[in-house]
Amino acid sequence: MNKSQLYRHLNVQVDLAVEAHQMLRGESGEEIPGVIMDEQKLDHAKVTIITVETDEGVEAIGKPKGQYITIDAPEIRNNDYSVHEAITQILADRLIDLMDLSEDASILIIGLGNWNATPDALGPQVIDKTMVTRHLYQLSPEELKGKMRKVSAISPGVLGTTGIETAEIIRGIVDHVKPDLVIAIDALAAGSPERIGTSIQLADTGIHPGSGVGNPRAGINEETIGCKVIAIGLPTVLNAAIIAHDAVEGIFKEFVTSPSLYKLYKGIKPEVYSKIIDDVLSPFQGNLMVTPKEIDSLIQISAKIIAGALTISLHPGIDREDYERYLQ
Amino acid sequence: MNKSQLYRHLNVQVDLAVEAHQMLRGESGEEIPGVIMDEQKLDHAKVTIITVETDEGVEAIGKPKGQYITIDAPEIRNNDYSVHEAITQILADRLIDLMDLSEDASILIIGLGNWNATPDALGPQVIDKTMVTRHLYQLSPEELKGKMRKVSAISPGVLGTTGIETAEIIRGIVDHVKPDLVIAIDALAAGSPERIGTSIQLADTGIHPGSGVGNPRAGINEETIGCKVIAIGLPTVLNAAIIAHDAVEGIFKEFVTSPSLYKLYKGIKPEVYSKIIDDVLSPFQGNLMVTPKEIDSLIQISAKIIAGALTISLHPGIDREDYERYLQ
Amino acid sequence: MNKSQLYRHLNVQVDLAVEAHQMLRGESGEEIPGVIMDEQKLDHAKVTIITVETDEGVEAIGKPKGQYITIDAPEIRNNDYSVHEAITQILADRLIDLMDLSEDASILIIGLGNWNATPDALGPQVIDKTMVTRHLYQLSPEELKGKMRKVSAISPGVLGTTGIETAEIIRGIVDHVKPDLVIAIDALAAGSPERIGTSIQLADTGIHPGSGVGNPRAGINEETIGCKVIAIGLPTVLNAAIIAHDAVEGIFKEFVTSPSLYKLYKGIKPEVYSKIIDDVLSPFQGNLMVTPKEIDSLIQISAKIIAGALTISLHPGIDREDYERYLQ
Amino acid sequence: MNKSQLYRHLNVQVDLAVEAHQMLRGESGEEIPGVIMDEQKLDHAKVTIITVETDEGVEAIGKPKGQYITIDAPEIRNNDYSVHEAITQILADRLIDLMDLSEDASILIIGLGNWNATPDALGPQVIDKTMVTRHLYQLSPEELKGKMRKVSAISPGVLGTTGIETAEIIRGIVDHVKPDLVIAIDALAAGSPERIGTSIQLADTGIHPGSGVGNPRAGINEETIGCKVIAIGLPTVLNAAIIAHDAVEGIFKEFVTSPSLYKLYKGIKPEVYSKIIDDVLSPFQGNLMVTPKEIDSLIQISAKIIAGALTISLHPGIDREDYERYLQ
Repeated sequence: MNKSQLYRHLNVQVDLAVEAHQMLRGESGEEIPGVIMDEQKLDHAKVTIITVETDEGVEAIGKPKGQYITIDAPEIRNNDYSVHEAITQILADRLIDLMDLSEDASILIIGLGNWNATPDALGPQVIDKTMVTRHLYQLSPEELKGKMRKVSAISPGVLGTTGIETAEIIRGIVDHVKPDLVIAIDALAAGSPERIGTSIQLADTGIHPGSGVGNPRAGINEETIGCKVIAIGLPTVLNAAIIAHDAVEGIFKEFVTSPSLYKLYKGIKPEVYSKIIDDVLSPFQGNLMVTPKEIDSLIQISAKIIAGALTISLHPGIDREDYERYLQ
Repeated sequence: MNKSQLYRHLNVQVDLAVEAHQMLRGESGEEIPGVIMDEQKLDHAKVTIITVETDEGVEAIGKPKGQYITIDAPEIRNNDYSVHEAITQILADRLIDLMDLSEDASILIIGLGNWNATPDALGPQVIDKTMVTRHLYQLSPEELKGKMRKVSAISPGVLGTTGIETAEIIRGIVDHVKPDLVIAIDALAAGSPERIGTSIQLADTGIHPGSGVGNPRAGINEETIGCKVIAIGLPTVLNAAIIAHDAVEGIFKEFVTSPSLYKLYKGIKPEVYSKIIDDVLSPFQGNLMVTPKEIDSLIQISAKIIAGALTISLHPGIDREDYERYLQ
Repeated sequence: MNKSQLYRHLNVQVDLAVEAHQMLRGESGEEIPGVIMDEQKLDHAKVTIITVETDEGVEAIGKPKGQYITIDAPEIRNNDYSVHEAITQILADRLIDLMDLSEDASILIIGLGNWNATPDALGPQVIDKTMVTRHLYQLSPEELKGKMRKVSAISPGVLGTTGIETAEIIRGIVDHVKPDLVIAIDALAAGSPERIGTSIQLADTGIHPGSGVGNPRAGINEETIGCKVIAIGLPTVLNAAIIAHDAVEGIFKEFVTSPSLYKLYKGIKPEVYSKIIDDVLSPFQGNLMVTPKEIDSLIQISAKIIAGALTISLHPGIDREDYERYLQ
Repeated sequence: MNKSQLYRHLNVQVDLAVEAHQMLRGESGEEIPGVIMDEQKLDHAKVTIITVETDEGVEAIGKPKGQYITIDAPEIRNNDYSVHEAITQILADRLIDLMDLSEDASILIIGLGNWNATPDALGPQVIDKTMVTRHLYQLSPEELKGKMRKVSAISPGVLGTTGIETAEIIRGIVDHVKPDLVIAIDALAAGSPERIGTSIQLADTGIHPGSGVGNPRAGINEETIGCKVIAIGLPTVLNAAIIAHDAVEGIFKEFVTSPSLYKLYKGIKPEVYSKIIDDVLSPFQGNLMVTPKEIDSLIQISAKIIAGALTISLHPGIDREDYERYLQ
């Protein structure tokens, strides 16, 4: 049994490409064909770029072809606001590159997730802080030209509160608003606690709302909605099964020095192992999430960083020193 | 000068057909061709049905052809919950008649208005209290059949927070959800304070979001979205210009007994009169709204009544005694 | 009849000392003994300081002895964020003067008003944006010393939602927290629409929660709670009776040129005049408030300005360029 | 090593007396001196009453002397509203017994916890749904007498948002309001997932806000505030360390059949075991909480049940069939 097999049995999704890649490399110890990884060290952040290039890569890593940029910035968790500004700039720079927008582009920002459940409210909170400008163009197009792009924004809610698949709502709106670019913000599920609140992933491959919890609904990507879709995500939770697995692994690794014992552990069949974990998590099983106590301030800080980076990167006329003025 | 002329100059909209009709009748003293009015007295409520039948009627009253049912229930403002239940039943009965739904009909409820501004938050608050069921049909269609209809619900926000015309969003969603009926809930503007929080209007003519404030956007009705649209509204505000006009009228009526003086008053040209009122309301003019101090509890109570009536009328399997269980 | 008499009959409260003073001067045309007024013009704002010095002044103006500083900044209503920053600095400077704090002072900020009713939510929204630091002193007192003062903050709610007089709650908290200074933030009622959202009043005389609506409850001031109380207020509403009065006055002033007619108008007895206005406002009478449609963004902007000024003026270590980082 | 030792090392708190008792019994297999347990089976619920009678009992179970009633009702998690009503009645009956109120008693309800973090928002949500009546007594004391008791209610916030210890705020308010009884509502931490959202604990021993997370602040009980304090709690989270421990235990119990191996596992020292778990939870350690994905609806349903039971038990004049009318 290895981790990927167990996760498949437990229906544990790893949203970050960088973690999926790490897990795969950790198990095989080899390069993954069709997947390229590049790393850069910056002040306050490490940037990792995973590019899934071939069908073989897609098959191995379980993610669509495209680019996945992860900005790891553990200092987001500290209350040092000048560092938060630096991280905001790093994110803005990556966004500008990835979006490659014309001057008069129209952008629709979608805040995915459930505003009634704090760990899932990242998307809606980014929308709350984002200034919309699309409607102002009808009043003063000349004044705004070259300074601000046309931005619209909506939080469509979740299936449980609307009765409608999120992808249906978004497709409907896109059909009528006809943006040049959709940016979707979502709270993600991490593969380990240290990623929570600190790893921001940008992807040019679109998104799959709710796909992480075992309900594979139609995705939101260029193919399904007819315009480029960039996803911005940040892990806010962890599947509780991961804690369960990691604790067992930790005990065996550290304490059971006998190789025969470790072999015994590794020989447990995934279906048996996953049954035990399911019992521990019963009656919630895969629906049990792990999240920090201070999730509210963590969401607030990261929403401010993402909304700030959107403000800087979407509006050429907004000064990098002054973007905080424009946060709502 | 008469009231209608002045209102036109001041851009004051009268959302209730019953008030538009009253104003017209008050001025002309005659029947309005093409418009029929019917009244019924019930315990706790008076029901008035205005039917606009001909183009001539449309021209006169300024509302599209169709039926406008107003339930006047001043007791909504009292804290007598058993009376609120009675009013909920009256509203439910009218809705059942007006909707005329098949057993397996699918209904989309839209909560119009701005959830950040209490007097405009009626629609979103009704949505918050409404149970959605459409997605449950995918899980247990047989169990729900004949008991609950397929209900979906969304609060699309307002132009100022999304940058998108509400009608565009709704049309997009309707294209994908394909409901048999749309029910749109909105806070209205009254023609006099006594209507605030007490008159519920049902109309089978659709709605015109934001049309009351001088921005005539595309409406939401059968013609534009391809399915029947029922509007439920309740006045929560009053244009401040109405208070200004009514006070002047009051002073002249009661104190200036000389007919020559009243004639002098009536001779003031609408453009002059409206200029004075605009000065009094400056710098807000037509954007100044009148609302009761206790607007929060008034909105809460009326949202409960409307959501309760929707629950009773949409779901045959929900007992009239027990609908409050199902309010969220 | 004059305006003050009518307002007394209608129970209309004028919260801004600068307006009470203006009304009094307008009627008498004379200096008010015991009350001193001083004005300063600044970029983006006019500052008026009313000092009530003697018992005679108290009697005349109906406000306790002390200083009332009003910052009039109509540009708050524009969306020019650099101007908002300038106004924030002006307010911060006045606060620093008025508070006269020692380096290790402890400050309790109280957000008065009802968070469920947007026009009354200014106080709670300022609290939401304010960083609290008092509890951090238990962890790292040396690090914070000289940079941040001890700030605590609470929104106590309103009588209708707690069942407890706000003054009782505040006194209870003050007894236990023992701050050196209380700052109370509240939404005020203006005497004319142009003050709404643009006039910020600072007073060193404490406050009287809910006193504006005819329920004279125990005040919050140095005498009743044993520490200095500074009130910060901004009008967000206007009593609807003022619109009624001003419209009548406007009509008479402009159209009835005959002096005998104006005399007739002025001869209307306050009890008769107020009866007519009460009829116009029926069934809400004095509980009908006038507020702009865009009240939500107006509250948001002014809460940001007040919270920003508090941040600058309370914490010596927060740079004037960077205060926006610290807004929550 | 046993579970209690490990929990002490990991700073894991078990809020439910019934779970603390179970854990103790499980380990010793013996009666606990000074602690009495009684169980009753009802339709839809099992009621367990733990009475801590002696100092010896206090020492053993780690809870103050008094009565702890737990209502276990797994059906809370189903969407069957008639069952929810039955559970509401059961809770109301227990409350009536425990409170033993005089007809004119005055009750202060405190909603503990952080409204910005869904899993911690149970207390504030109960307050939102609770009708307050204390202020109405000033208006119509005779009309209310014998029908409604004097209820006041407040959500004081948490240290992180106010900068003030919750116990300080409550003591201040109690000093001024002088209630006969304080009822404090709080979200608890469970010892196993199956308790989440289904076990309601009533205790006549008061509460210790935030004590569960390692910051032992002054409690709220008869001794410290001078009036009886009843605590109502419901687990909404689980410390992540419990999942870690239970998974390891599960693996060893089921798969490592050799007694020598199990002995090896049991021989791991608590400080070593807890170090491994801390590493798995790093960088959050004891601040990592486990909560169901559907935490928002779980909180909403249980808040409705608790607020309903308070309404029935506090007001003799509210009919058991109609309590839902009175929920806000």
